[in-house]
Formats: sequence, C-alpha cells, structure tokens
Amino acid sequence: MLSSTSLFAPVESDLRLLTENLKRLISARHPILGAAAEHLFEAGGKRLRPAIVLLVSRATLGGEEPTPRHRRLAEITEMIHTASLVHDDVVDEAALRRNAPTVNSLFDNRIAVLAGDFLFAQSSWYLANLDNLQVVKLLSEVIRDFAEGEILQSINRFDVEVSLEVYLDKSYYKTASLIANSAKAAAVLSDVSLETAEKLYRYGRDLGLAFQIVDDILDFTSPTEVLGKPAGSDLLSGNITAPALFALEEFPGLRGLIEREFAENGDIEQALALVRQSDGVHRARELAQSHGKRALQYLDCLQPSAAKDSLIDVADYVLSRIY
Amino acid sequence: MLSSTSLFAPVESDLRLLTENLKRLISARHPILGAAAEHLFEAGGKRLRPAIVLLVSRATLGGEEPTPRHRRLAEITEMIHTASLVHDDVVDEAALRRNAPTVNSLFDNRIAVLAGDFLFAQSSWYLANLDNLQVVKLLSEVIRDFAEGEILQSINRFDVEVSLEVYLDKSYYKTASLIANSAKAAAVLSDVSLETAEKLYRYGRDLGLAFQIVDDILDFTSPTEVLGKPAGSDLLSGNITAPALFALEEFPGLRGLIEREFAENGDIEQALALVRQSDGVHRARELAQSHGKRALQYLDCLQPSAAKDSLIDVADYVLSRIY
Repeated sequence: MLSSTSLFAPVESDLRLLTENLKRLISARHPILGAAAEHLFEAGGKRLRPAIVLLVSRATLGGEEPTPRHRRLAEITEMIHTASLVHDDVVDEAALRRNAPTVNSLFDNRIAVLAGDFLFAQSSWYLANLDNLQVVKLLSEVIRDFAEGEILQSINRFDVEVSLEVYLDKSYYKTASLIANSAKAAAVLSDVSLETAEKLYRYGRDLGLAFQIVDDILDFTSPTEVLGKPAGSDLLSGNITAPALFALEEFPGLRGLIEREFAENGDIEQALALVRQSDGVHRARELAQSHGKRALQYLDCLQPSAAKDSLIDVADYVLSRIY
Repeated sequence: MLSSTSLFAPVESDLRLLTENLKRLISARHPILGAAAEHLFEAGGKRLRPAIVLLVSRATLGGEEPTPRHRRLAEITEMIHTASLVHDDVVDEAALRRNAPTVNSLFDNRIAVLAGDFLFAQSSWYLANLDNLQVVKLLSEVIRDFAEGEILQSINRFDVEVSLEVYLDKSYYKTASLIANSAKAAAVLSDVSLETAEKLYRYGRDLGLAFQIVDDILDFTSPTEVLGKPAGSDLLSGNITAPALFALEEFPGLRGLIEREFAENGDIEQALALVRQSDGVHRARELAQSHGKRALQYLDCLQPSAAKDSLIDVADYVLSRIY
C-alpha cells in the first residue's frame, strides 16, 4: 500500500510549507487558539485536500511552481476543512479524532465554537483577498454545502427510511463538495479552459464520494486503534451510512434496533454484527470503486506530468484503504 | 423618545419586506432551522443594522428605490449579525436574549452551532453572489472581526488590567465593524465617490461604538424586564465594560471582587453597587456622546433627504436610550 508521503511526492515540500504557514497564520495572533491550532494542524491529518489542490495546481501550470495564490487556496481549503471538523465534533459531542482528543473535549465547547468560527472567518477573509470572484463563489458554495450536510445528517439521524440518494447527497455536501470545488478553483487560478476546470470538478466530486464511502466502510471494519475513534461510532450516533443502508435491505431486524436508538443492552453490538455479516460492506466497496474509476476518467484533460500521476495514485490510494 | 418605527419611517416598508425574505430564505429548506429562524427573526430585534444599510442606500441613490443588491446586502447584514448572536449565546451559555429564550437554551448547543453555521454560510454565499469583490472584502472583514471580538472578550474575562483602548477595540470588532463596513458597502453599491464611501464607514464606526457603549451602560442601569436578560450579566460573566473600567479607577476595592470572579456570596451585588455609585456611568455616557457627535459630522457628504434625516435621528436615538 502506498504511504501518503510517497503518494504526494511532487508536492511534499509544498505541504511542509503549508503546515508551517497554517500554524503561523493562526497562532501569531491568539495564544488561546494557538494551542488549539497547533493541536489541529499537527494531529496527523493526511493533508489530502490541500495536496489535491497543489497537485491540480502543478498539473495545470505546465511544470511551473504553484503561485502564491495557488498556495493560499490550498491553505484556505485546509482551514475550511479543519473548521468544519471542529464544529462537527461539538455537534456530535465527539471526544476523539485521529487518536487525539477533540478541541471540545481538550478545552471546551466555548473554545471549540470560537476556534471553528475563527478558522471560517480567516478563510473567508483570505478567500476574498485572492481577488477572484469565481473562486470566491466556488468556495462559498463549499461553506454552504458543509452547513447543509451537517443539517441533513442531523435531520436523518436514526432514520431507517433514508435513501441511498440522500446518503450520497450528504456525502457530497460533507466531503466531495470541498474536494471538487477546490480542485476546480485551482484550475481556474491557472487559467485553464472551462472544459478542463469542469472535468477537474468532476474528478474531485467522484474522488470525494469514493473517499467518504471508504471512510464509512472503515468505521465498520477497522479496529478502534486504527480508526482513532471508537469503531461503529457512526451507527451509534444514528448516522446511517452505505454499509448499514445495504444491510437494512438484507436484515430487516436491524430496523428495530436503530429505531429504538440502541436503547437496550447489547443493541449496538448486535447491529454492528448484522452489518458485518451482511453483504453491505461488499456492496459499499463496489460503490466506492465505481466512483473511484469514474474519477480517473476525468483526468484525460491533463498533459502527462508527475503531478497528474499522483492524482491517479490518489484515487488508487483512497480505494486501497479498504483492502 | 423616538420609537424605532417612526425613526426608520423612510425604510419601514423595506424592513417589512426584509423580515419576510429572511424567514423565507431560512425556513424554506429546513424545518429544523425554520423554527430557530422564525424565533430569531421575530424576536423583537430593532433591525438597526439593515435599517442603516437601507437608509444609506436611499440617501446615496438620490431618491431612487434601493436595488435588489442593496436589499440583499441589508439581508446579509442581518444574517451575519444573527449568526454571531447565536454563537455568542453558546459561548456565553446565555439563556435569555430580548426576553426570549436563546436558541441554545430553547433547543440545544448542537442546533445553535448548526443554525449559526448555516446563517454564516448562507451569508457568505449570498455575499459572493452580489458579484462585487470590494463588497465581499468589506463584509468578510466583518466576519473576521466578529471572531476577533469574541476571542478578545474571552481572553480578557475578569482581567482588571484591561485598558479603555482594548475595550474600544473589542467594541469595534463586536459591533461597530458590521455597521461601518455595511454602510460603506451600501455606498459602494451606489457607486459614490471614494471619499463619501469612507465618510459613511466613519459614520458607522462612531455610531457603532456609541451604540455598544450605551448597551454596556444599560446593562448596569436598566431593570431586568427592560433588558430582556439579567441585569449586570456582563460583569458577572467577566466582561469588563466602560462603566466598570471607570469605576475601577475610583474604587480599587472592585478589583478583588472581579479577580476572585465573584466567588463569595454577595460579591456581585457589591460590585454592581460600586459601579452604580461611581462616576463610571456618567463618564461612559460622555464617551458615548462624543462618538455619537462625531458620527454626525461625517454625514455632511450626503445631499438632504428624508433618509439622511433618519441617519441623523438614529444617532440621537442611540444616545436617547440612556436618558
């Protein structure tokens, strides 16, 4: 399996610079948030989103270095992503993420709301100062989609009637929108054709969906130590993802357990066992693969380059996590 | 004393339209937030911020009706303001605002964080779609200032060494920035000269500072029923505002009470009594008045109109609240 370091080789030094910049941007002003930022930007993130922005930048710039605006876009992408994680953890009352305590558990809800607001606010400000109205629109769409995704997830908690379509919408809002729109924004900053920009949006969209489905599978199949949070926590919190959706078709007995919100002793263990026994994980894998494959097709718009090769490898890497 | 209805006469019908639009924009998509929105936009707000945007619009358009973009800007202003209130109440664990339960107390923190994020996200999106990069920058500055203000307030809780300068910075970030930048943005949408736009920014800045100082005075001088939240709650939560800052110079005994965070029985009552006995309220009034007067000077850039007269009256109205 590829490690994310060798995977991102063409942008490795770019990503080091990005991490330093992000910590500096946040910590400089506020020690109180500095601690949270240090924690957030150090916490073993894979930097998948800024890596894609930087790879698309390099792949569309024909061998030139990313401009300061491309780099800033990558930073904005990671800031928006991090802000959404911090608020998600408040909303979900999560205590652990990537094996590290969440901001709300390490500090408190007050600091977590502030830190998320601060990151969103900084990202809007840096975004406006990219001086490109089209890029502002693409990324403000992402911020709107995040809120939409969180709300959809909130509304549909423990709803066994939720459709695969709503699940995919939610996955788009929560994950794919940021990857798709920021890939397109990087292309826009490189002044590519409308068609190429649109194809890179599609690449990000399908890659993002594959990524979210894989994440949802891992919540059922990975041990807690690897996940960095308790296994099965999606289902426990009422978030019914692809494997559970498919399992519901196979084992109608799962409905009752979910509908009573795992109120009785042993309910959650039984539900997790049913999903794992079912064909749900396998079917979810196929779904992720079909999106991963589709993502690759859109890369035909790019000239050959090391960055393009990495973008291909990223899709393979995302899928390799479930094997 | 002028009521806020007659005060805003030139934009009365504009404000009715705005309230309807805001409820529609939010409720249409999400019943779960619809309830919160209904509650938020009905809760007896004075609509001071959108009223100023609409008055500046009319005053700079030479008798023309505000354009759809001016109206949208007024809506965005109220959305940003409301989003910040919702998150402030989570951060401050407030239970009441304007005599109505807060979103976090009526629903819970989860819904309050979501509702605030949703409003911020909607406002960024509508903002980007105004298609004016300068306006995007002005308002993204406001969002950044809000986060800054909340953090400054958080850092300086119970800090008796806080200076008048930091207090005024905080008041600018929390209150004056939105009024100043949105007044300027309305002027920018009307294509006025740079000088006029800058004067309207200054008007909003000084008016906003006067408004915040008056609000801080009322927290000491008004009964709970009128305030719509417990009197003295700023001081109790460690937010040291102008009257308390001045009182600290006069009665050094106040320091100890604040520094021990009113831990002993009767501490807060004693502290409130000291502030009320002191010259602090009087000195804070003078400070508010000096900002109110300065605000008026900047209106010399406007041609005579009913809207201009209202902008003058707004400054008088803000100050009249403390007499």
